[in-house]
Amino acid sequence: MNFPLSLNLMEMKTLHPEDQNFKGFFKELSGRVEDRLRDCFAGLNVPDDLYESMNYSLLAGGKRIRPVLCLSWAGMLGAELEKIVDFACGIEMVHTYSLVHDDLPAMDDDDLRRGRPTNHKVFGEAMAILAGDGLLTHAFYLMARTDLPAADVLAACGEISRAAGPAGMVGGQVVDIMATRSNAMDLDALRKMHSMKTGALISSSCVCGAMLARSWGAGKIDAANALSFGESLGLAFQIVDDILDVTGDEESLGKKVGSDESKDKSTYPKFFGLEMSKKLAQESVDRAKKSLDGYFGQEKNFLVDLSQYVVDRVC
Amino acid sequence: MNFPLSLNLMEMKTLHPEDQNFKGFFKELSGRVEDRLRDCFAGLNVPDDLYESMNYSLLAGGKRIRPVLCLSWAGMLGAELEKIVDFACGIEMVHTYSLVHDDLPAMDDDDLRRGRPTNHKVFGEAMAILAGDGLLTHAFYLMARTDLPAADVLAACGEISRAAGPAGMVGGQVVDIMATRSNAMDLDALRKMHSMKTGALISSSCVCGAMLARSWGAGKIDAANALSFGESLGLAFQIVDDILDVTGDEESLGKKVGSDESKDKSTYPKFFGLEMSKKLAQESVDRAKKSLDGYFGQEKNFLVDLSQYVVDRVC
Repeated sequence: MNFPLSLNLMEMKTLHPEDQNFKGFFKELSGRVEDRLRDCFAGLNVPDDLYESMNYSLLAGGKRIRPVLCLSWAGMLGAELEKIVDFACGIEMVHTYSLVHDDLPAMDDDDLRRGRPTNHKVFGEAMAILAGDGLLTHAFYLMARTDLPAADVLAACGEISRAAGPAGMVGGQVVDIMATRSNAMDLDALRKMHSMKTGALISSSCVCGAMLARSWGAGKIDAANALSFGESLGLAFQIVDDILDVTGDEESLGKKVGSDESKDKSTYPKFFGLEMSKKLAQESVDRAKKSLDGYFGQEKNFLVDLSQYVVDRVC
Repeated sequence: MNFPLSLNLMEMKTLHPEDQNFKGFFKELSGRVEDRLRDCFAGLNVPDDLYESMNYSLLAGGKRIRPVLCLSWAGMLGAELEKIVDFACGIEMVHTYSLVHDDLPAMDDDDLRRGRPTNHKVFGEAMAILAGDGLLTHAFYLMARTDLPAADVLAACGEISRAAGPAGMVGGQVVDIMATRSNAMDLDALRKMHSMKTGALISSSCVCGAMLARSWGAGKIDAANALSFGESLGLAFQIVDDILDVTGDEESLGKKVGSDESKDKSTYPKFFGLEMSKKLAQESVDRAKKSLDGYFGQEKNFLVDLSQYVVDRVC
């Protein structure tokens, strides 16, 4: 198994000059997250070894897609981003813990992540388990301290815990492990697994952006649009990732091409062939863009560009 | 390392007839928690294997000390317990996840817990890691859905995440592991480690009971008293556990006696001798009781009895 796609998004070398706005805006939002993550344990008495282990993975050059989605949706709905950034950092911590645990010997047994030794390779298994536990727990500490109306923050905390929990990300990882062992997953199961394992946290990041923008007038319809956008984008991400595993070049992908195929893994190209998979990815991106109808401004343009960018990598 | 003490509290065979009220009340409160834990994943689409693994540890006959403390404090302050029980169950889930991860081969490598094979022995390491992750995440889902004023619930969620996080329980586990490796812990370090590893969640359970009772008139002074009570009780628990490791009988303890000594672990009897350790435990219990001055009713009596019961096991 690999946690996919999105991670290599900005490393792709296909950016055109007209993409500079997109890239600049991405950098601005991810920069805010990056800055806040650097001091997110400030004022707490965290043992040195644990602090190092958590920060090793947290500050390892992730692309911050999920918090950027949260900030973009909140910003598009009028929110003051400074008020949202702590919560967005919490989402990134949830994502990071899942990577640390996913790499463990008992799980995917990966030695490298983003070109560096995985957490347990550097700090040992016990510390990697505890670093993951610490990141997940601290994520809720950070999110719970968001300085916005308590009802909105609480609803968003509930949303993330649902998306990341046994019926979401953790559950999806279990389904993936069981399917890899038994070598059997039909298309419905594949869809379900992806929507739990990666889709839930991606769409939830958008939904939380909308929930936290309630003080600025956002409503239920915005949360529903954010959900629809996030689900479609998440699906497109996953299809494209499957396609790139067949067609991509290893250097720009940063991982071995054909690894899914060699493991006889269920993928979209395996079920539909390459061309149909590309078509499905574009359709999913079109649905994502459709959810943005009626919104405007810099964030809306960014979210449209981000959606198209995903599928342009393969079409 | 072992997660201690409290777990064997009700299994001790020293209950006198006059303890029946205490025992009955304990059973009533823990029964509420037990009932709710049985259906805490209701309505969620959790994969079967994960569901089984989480429930195996969650419904393994734990004594529910932490949620009982939360309910007792809330009840003593006038709260309607039915409104608190979901949150209290969340605390028990946090505790349970810590046991599952603590038993893993990379950590304490324990084969038995409460007389049954540990989670990873039955479900494998990958599933045990994910079951722990699922329990921790779902704890926040459950706590966030508490039907009380959002500001109070959010404050309590923040309190638990602090107590269980990198500067609390997870951090304490790291300190313990590092000290075991280096064989060096002075008295200050021992105190600090215990207060993080087990004390923080115990005292936090009391504090959350007070925080969630705000709707019924509880205030900051009650939360401060709950903290003081919980810290003193947690310390007494730990000293008694250290003493029982030297003097207890293995059958009623349910673990090997002398295991701390044979590992050359830092303990209270090692620093102070047996008699002085007993005196320190009684002093700590007296401080706990003192924090209950000015309260009254069934819950107050129960908390007084619970405190004394802890130390009566060794004095």
